[in-house]
Amino acid sequence: MPHVPPIFRAAENGHSLTPEKYDAELPRLRARLLEAHHALREQKFPVIVIVSGADGAGKGELVHRLNEWLDPRGVATHAFWRPSDEERERPAFWRFWRAMPGRGRIGIFFGSWYTEPVIERVYGRMKKKAFEAELDRIAAFEKMLADDRTVFVKLRLHLSKREQKRRLKKLERDGRIGPEDWQHFQLYDKFNKVSARSLVRTDLPHARWHVIEATDRRYREIAAGQVLLEALEQALAAAAKPVSAARRVAAARRAADRLAPKRGHLSRLDLAQRLDDDAYGDELAKYQSRLSQLAWEAQDRGVSTVLAFEGWDAAGKGSAIKRVTEAIDPRLYRVVGVPAPTDEERAQHYLWRFWRQLPRAGYLTIFDRSWYGRVLVERVEGFATPAEWGRAYTEINAFEEQLADRGIVLGKFWIHISPEEQLQRFKERETVAYKRYKITEEDWRNRKKWPDYQHAVEDMVTCCDTPCAPWTIVPGNDKKFARVQILKTIVQRLESALEE
Amino acid sequence: MPHVPPIFRAAENGHSLTPEKYDAELPRLRARLLEAHHALREQKFPVIVIVSGADGAGKGELVHRLNEWLDPRGVATHAFWRPSDEERERPAFWRFWRAMPGRGRIGIFFGSWYTEPVIERVYGRMKKKAFEAELDRIAAFEKMLADDRTVFVKLRLHLSKREQKRRLKKLERDGRIGPEDWQHFQLYDKFNKVSARSLVRTDLPHARWHVIEATDRRYREIAAGQVLLEALEQALAAAAKPVSAARRVAAARRAADRLAPKRGHLSRLDLAQRLDDDAYGDELAKYQSRLSQLAWEAQDRGVSTVLAFEGWDAAGKGSAIKRVTEAIDPRLYRVVGVPAPTDEERAQHYLWRFWRQLPRAGYLTIFDRSWYGRVLVERVEGFATPAEWGRAYTEINAFEEQLADRGIVLGKFWIHISPEEQLQRFKERETVAYKRYKITEEDWRNRKKWPDYQHAVEDMVTCCDTPCAPWTIVPGNDKKFARVQILKTIVQRLESALEE
Repeated sequence: MPHVPPIFRAAENGHSLTPEKYDAELPRLRARLLEAHHALREQKFPVIVIVSGADGAGKGELVHRLNEWLDPRGVATHAFWRPSDEERERPAFWRFWRAMPGRGRIGIFFGSWYTEPVIERVYGRMKKKAFEAELDRIAAFEKMLADDRTVFVKLRLHLSKREQKRRLKKLERDGRIGPEDWQHFQLYDKFNKVSARSLVRTDLPHARWHVIEATDRRYREIAAGQVLLEALEQALAAAAKPVSAARRVAAARRAADRLAPKRGHLSRLDLAQRLDDDAYGDELAKYQSRLSQLAWEAQDRGVSTVLAFEGWDAAGKGSAIKRVTEAIDPRLYRVVGVPAPTDEERAQHYLWRFWRQLPRAGYLTIFDRSWYGRVLVERVEGFATPAEWGRAYTEINAFEEQLADRGIVLGKFWIHISPEEQLQRFKERETVAYKRYKITEEDWRNRKKWPDYQHAVEDMVTCCDTPCAPWTIVPGNDKKFARVQILKTIVQRLESALEE
Repeated sequence: MPHVPPIFRAAENGHSLTPEKYDAELPRLRARLLEAHHALREQKFPVIVIVSGADGAGKGELVHRLNEWLDPRGVATHAFWRPSDEERERPAFWRFWRAMPGRGRIGIFFGSWYTEPVIERVYGRMKKKAFEAELDRIAAFEKMLADDRTVFVKLRLHLSKREQKRRLKKLERDGRIGPEDWQHFQLYDKFNKVSARSLVRTDLPHARWHVIEATDRRYREIAAGQVLLEALEQALAAAAKPVSAARRVAAARRAADRLAPKRGHLSRLDLAQRLDDDAYGDELAKYQSRLSQLAWEAQDRGVSTVLAFEGWDAAGKGSAIKRVTEAIDPRLYRVVGVPAPTDEERAQHYLWRFWRQLPRAGYLTIFDRSWYGRVLVERVEGFATPAEWGRAYTEINAFEEQLADRGIVLGKFWIHISPEEQLQRFKERETVAYKRYKITEEDWRNRKKWPDYQHAVEDMVTCCDTPCAPWTIVPGNDKKFARVQILKTIVQRLESALEE
C-alpha cells in the first residue's frame, strides 16, 4: 500500500454519483450558482478559482463545466503556460497580477503560483528550504489579496495511485500513451507528497483548499460546483453584513500595535547641507554622464531599474526626476505619475497599478509618487482604513522583495524639507508664471497636516527600510545638494548591480 | 549639388537663433505650453507628437526638452524599438495602439509607424507599390484617430547633406565613428527621397508635417515648441466651440450617403432550416472533434483566431459560443464580453478595447458582441453620432484587413432569428430559473426597435462583408442548425488557413 498523505485520504473513498442523482442536483446547483454570480457584481469582490490536480483528473473538463455554469460575461479563464518574454522579464508573479480578476468578477486559474514550485521541487531543482520559503510567500500573497476581499476557491482534483494506473492502462490499450507517460507515473508518490505539503502549508482560513475525489466525473463536477457555490454564498452573506464599529476600532488598534515607532529619522537629518554652484555643476555633470553609460549597460545586460520618488509638496521631486531623466536616453525610461486611480485600477488591489507598470528587462520606470501613497496620503487623509494601511507595510516589503529577487535595481527617495522652506517655495510658485500650475489649494491644506504626515513618513521609513530595499532620505532644502545625492545613489546602486 | 526634395528645401536656409533670442523666447513659450497642457486635461482630446528625422539631428535632445517643458504627469514618451515577442505575434500596429495616449494626455512617439516602412523601402526590401499601400494605410489610420479628436503634431528634424557630412567629419576627428557610419551616409539621398515621399503623401489637414531645420539646437527647439504650442492652442480653441446643428445634420447626411443600402440579406435568409436530433448529435461531434485538433494545430503553427458573435437578443450567441469553447482546450481560448467600456477604454478610440484583446500567436479570442456595436446598438440608440457610425464601416474594414494581413483567422457571425421566435424565447427565459438572469427590461425595449436594428444589420453586412473578412449570416430559429453551421464555418476557415 502506498502512503497516502492525510489531506488526500478522504478523496480515496470511492465517491461517485449516479446519473439520476447528477441530473437531479444539476439544475438546482446551476440556478444558485448563477444567482450568486449575479449578486457578486453588486458586492464587488473578486473571486479566484484555482483548479489543480493530477494529469488526467479532469481539470480541463471541470473548467469547461464551470464556464458553462457561470455567466460567461463575468468570468475569465487563465492558463499559465509558457511565459512570454515580457513575462519572463518581470518578477515571477507579474503574470498572475496581469490576470487578476477585478472586483465583481471570477478568474478561473488553470495552473497557478503553485505549479512551478511543486514541479521544481519534485524534480529536485528546488531545495526544500527554498520550497518552504516559496510557500510562505504564497501564503502571504493570498492573505494580502484576501484582506482586500478576494475570495479564494482552491480546488484540488485527486486520483489515487491505483486509479491513475488503471487510467494509464486503459489509455495504453487504446494506443494513446507511450513509455514516457509511465516514467512520469513513477513520480506519482513524489508529486503527491510535494503537493500535499503545499496544500497543508497554505490551507488557511482565508484561502481553503478543497480536495475532491476525481475518479467519477459526475461526483467531481457536482462537488466542485458545490464548493464554489458555498464559498460565493458565504462571501456574499459576509459582504452584506456591515463591519461593526467595535471591530473597526479593534482593527485600528491592531494596525497601530504592529508599528514599533522609532521616530526621529527626519529631525536628525542635517538640512543645512548645501552645494555651491561650481561643485554642483561638476558633480551633476559627473554623475549624469556616468548614469547615461550605466543605463545603456543595464539595457545590454537586461537589468531593470525601479525608482520611487516621494517627498513633501514642493520638495523638488519633479526637478530631481528631471535631472535623472536628462541623463538617460528617452528610449530607456518611462516616468509614471500616480494620479487618482482609473476604474480598472480601483477594481483591483492597490498594488496592481504598480505591478502593471513594472519595466521590461533593461528599462527604467520612474514613479513620481508611488505605492507608498497607501501609508502616506491614504493614511493621513483617511482614504484607507487603519487596518488597510496598517498591513500595507508588510505588503509593500513583500512586493519590493520580489523586485529585488528578480534582480531589479530599486531606489526609494524621500526628499525632505523644512516647513519654512516649503512656505517660501509655495510663495515663489505663486509668482512665477510657468510654475503656477504647481500650486493648488490642496497644497495649502496638506501643509496644515504637517505633523500627521511627518509621523506617517517616520513610520514608513521605520517599517520599510529593508536590506533589499533601503530608503534614501534626501535633505532637500538645497535642491542642488538633493539632486546630486539622488543621482549619486542611483549610480552606486546600478554600479553594484552591474558588477555582480 | 544634390537634389533636395521640395518639402525639405525651406529647412536648408541656415535658420539659427542667438542665445539671447533663445533666452528671451523660452520663458514665454514654456508658460504658454504648460497652460495649454493643463487646458488639455479639461478638453479631453489626445495628442500624438511624432519626433522623426535623420540620425544626429537631435531627436533625443528634443524629446528631453519637450518632457522638460510639459507637465510630466500628463505626458509619456514611447520609443518603438525592438518589438517584444508579444508585439511580434500581433498585427504590426498593435504596439502603437498599446502606447496610445488617452484623452487629455500627450504621447511623444520616438519612432512611429513611419519608421519601418521607410527603412524597408530604403534598403529595397519593400517594393514601391507595397510602400505606397503602407502610406495609404497610415493616412487612413491617422484620419481615423483625427476624426476621433486626436491631434497630431508630426515633427521632422532635417539636416542638409552638407551639414550631415560636416557632423560626421567632426565626430570622426573625435574618433567617435567608424567606416560603417560613412557607409550609412551613402544612403543619405535615398533616405531623403523616401522620407520626403512619406511626408508628402501623409501631410494632410488633420495631420500636418512640420519640417524643422535641425542644424542649430536653439532654433530647432524653439521652432518645435512653437509648432506644438500652436497645434495645442488651435485644437483647444476648436474644442471649446460647439459644433453647429447645421454641421451635425450635414455630417449625418454624408454618413447616410456613404452607405449604398443593398438591403434584403436577412429577409432572403431561409429560417426554416433545421437539424433533427440525430443529425445534430453526429455533426456536432464531428465538427467539435475536428475543431479540437485544429486548435492545437493552430497553436503549434502560431496561427491566431478571432471570432466575433453578433445577433438578436436571445438568438443563441451564448450557447453557440459554448459549443465552440467546449471543443477547445481552455488554455487556448479566451471569451471576451463587451459590457460598458471602462474609463480607460472610454479615454481611447472605440477600437482600442478590441485591439488590446487580440490574441497572441496560436490562441483564439472569442468576442461575445464586438466592435460592430458601433454600427448596431450605438447607431440605433444614438450613442454614436451619424458621422461617427457612418465612418465606422471603413474603420472596421481597415481593422479587419490588418488582422487578415497578419494571418489571423477571422470569423464574424450574425445569428438571425425571426421576431416571433424571439418572443417565444423571451417568454421561456422568464419561466426557467437559471435562465431568468438573461432577460431584462432592456431586451423588451430593444425588441420594439426591431426595424431600426434590422436596417443597421443590413447596412453592416453590405459594408463590411469583405473578401478578407466575410460575414456569416446564420439562420438561428433552430439552435441546432445554427451551432453546427458556426462550427463548420470555423473548421473550414482554420483548415484553409492551416493548409497554406
